[in-house]
Amino acid sequence: MKRRDFFKYFSSAAILSTLPKLSKAEKPEFNWKMVTTWPKNFPGLGTGAQFLANTIQKLSGGRIKVSVYGAGELVPAFEIFDAVSSGVAELGHGSAYYWKGKNDTFQFFSTVPFGMSFNEMNAWLYKGGGMKLWEKAYADFNLIPMAAGNTGVQMGGWFNKEISSLNDLKGLKMRIPGLGGEVLKRAGGTPVNLPGGELFTALKTGTIDATEWVSPYNDLAFGFHKAAKYYYYPGWHEPGTTLECFVNANKFSELPDDLKQIVTGAAKIANMDMLCEFISKNNDALEILQKKHNVDIRQYPDEVLKELYKISKDVVKELSLKDDFAKEVYNSYSSFQQKTNNWNEISIKSYLNI
Amino acid sequence: MKRRDFFKYFSSAAILSTLPKLSKAEKPEFNWKMVTTWPKNFPGLGTGAQFLANTIQKLSGGRIKVSVYGAGELVPAFEIFDAVSSGVAELGHGSAYYWKGKNDTFQFFSTVPFGMSFNEMNAWLYKGGGMKLWEKAYADFNLIPMAAGNTGVQMGGWFNKEISSLNDLKGLKMRIPGLGGEVLKRAGGTPVNLPGGELFTALKTGTIDATEWVSPYNDLAFGFHKAAKYYYYPGWHEPGTTLECFVNANKFSELPDDLKQIVTGAAKIANMDMLCEFISKNNDALEILQKKHNVDIRQYPDEVLKELYKISKDVVKELSLKDDFAKEVYNSYSSFQQKTNNWNEISIKSYLNI
Repeated sequence: MKRRDFFKYFSSAAILSTLPKLSKAEKPEFNWKMVTTWPKNFPGLGTGAQFLANTIQKLSGGRIKVSVYGAGELVPAFEIFDAVSSGVAELGHGSAYYWKGKNDTFQFFSTVPFGMSFNEMNAWLYKGGGMKLWEKAYADFNLIPMAAGNTGVQMGGWFNKEISSLNDLKGLKMRIPGLGGEVLKRAGGTPVNLPGGELFTALKTGTIDATEWVSPYNDLAFGFHKAAKYYYYPGWHEPGTTLECFVNANKFSELPDDLKQIVTGAAKIANMDMLCEFISKNNDALEILQKKHNVDIRQYPDEVLKELYKISKDVVKELSLKDDFAKEVYNSYSSFQQKTNNWNEISIKSYLNI
Repeated sequence: MKRRDFFKYFSSAAILSTLPKLSKAEKPEFNWKMVTTWPKNFPGLGTGAQFLANTIQKLSGGRIKVSVYGAGELVPAFEIFDAVSSGVAELGHGSAYYWKGKNDTFQFFSTVPFGMSFNEMNAWLYKGGGMKLWEKAYADFNLIPMAAGNTGVQMGGWFNKEISSLNDLKGLKMRIPGLGGEVLKRAGGTPVNLPGGELFTALKTGTIDATEWVSPYNDLAFGFHKAAKYYYYPGWHEPGTTLECFVNANKFSELPDDLKQIVTGAAKIANMDMLCEFISKNNDALEILQKKHNVDIRQYPDEVLKELYKISKDVVKELSLKDDFAKEVYNSYSSFQQKTNNWNEISIKSYLNI
């Protein structure tokens, strides 16, 4: 008898009163571990991972129990990809650009500078062939990827140096990882990478001139307004970052069909939920930053954005020339982006500009 | 024995081999009907209802079977609210503004002119108290509402008369229902309401000068480009219409906890899926309308949008004065909208304008 049937049997214990009653929640069929790149319950991202775990449990009526581990609790943050690949844990929660060391092309499944924003990104993933490419990318690592959250448009970052022209980027020491960092470098800046927990001190002591992080909700929690003078927008380098959940392919294949659907469906619920959480909490945090802390919020000058845009297109294009798969992903992504730009122009952009 | 337990019992037939084996899919625990306001499988909306039904079935491993009925198949389109309220069907799929005859305030749960767009609407519903108010609104009718789709920003509509100034709205006969229609009326126009299926002929024969419908994906299917000269944007009257699924409260209460979670979760999945579907299909349809049919796509003049905005604020404000509940919903909605406007300004709006 399958373990699942065994518990189903007991759930009908009312008619077999000599058998002990066991609640399904006490004895899950699958005891899964989720390792994450975030501190446990870190606002938005860590809580998003926990939300996904809870959703899987609820939808499955407790048949799958998911224990969430913060960064370093079971494996270090940046080892979760390998840990889930090898089966140390069943689930991982992070973002695809963290694994660019495995393959640069993964970055398309998080976000790219001047790329698609959140809704377009989801439409590309679910309806435009993006998920299939992502699945292909992770299959070599015995992993099944799922989009499991989105931060929405991020902020440009916190600065102790005013950015009035392109010249102000020369020599700028800024914490900005990934493709955004490469773009800054070509604009004359010095990108550095530091873990989130070290940013406040680095900014305060002048080790760095600037840092990007996420958006008001997360940034307020870190207290960056106490360490920097200016808060620039928009987040050209991360216009809508997709968070991911990946599953060990062998473990996934052991699930019965309905539980496979539940894990996949729970990720979709978590994807939308995190975006709603960021929108809602960013509103409140922005009000506090503006009204209580009098933060100096500024838009990047046009000249700067135009140059960063130009460099970004080069950087992303170069990435696409790496190999056939990079080209395939780039072509799919950029043709979808081109079409959504046309539609955005007469829909959401036109509406917001009224 | 409850019917549910009966089938659970049989699902453990493997250990009681004298009993016949029954697959869950053949014998669902719950045989539910979904009545809809759309023609069966009508693109985007009808297919969205079917998607929701399929998702409930898949997530529940077939324990809930949902049969979808198009408008008029079981009950007429605009009788589904009463039908589900009284238990003729378990589920309904429509949009809350269709039931304004029951209570004008319901319109806030669909969309309001110059109101919140899709992401902000979802954030308000799920994180800003909107769902609780909606649940309160429908509780009097023995119904539990769920957001189950979104069209995104709609188009302004198809016109045979050029709109160059406010004056062109005077005497304009336009199919535009609900609050948008009231706004047009105050601007000097003549709003009419006609079912979707009659719009093409009415436009072609000059019975009406203009009609709004949805957006390129749906509008192309109706062939409006063969009956009108101009296609105006943006859809100020419907900046992101929420589709709904409502459930008969008694029937819902009969579900075990995990199936309750599954129905609620499936609606969230359907909510995001429909938006992705519209974004993706609008892109393709817009390209066809522009390149193949050379449609004359125009933005409403600023003067017109400003006046419509002013009137809309009055109309929505008046609605809020109706009673205490209207005031409660209005206050919750508009304070959330105000905050999202501030955040949009420096995030998505700023990003799209680069």
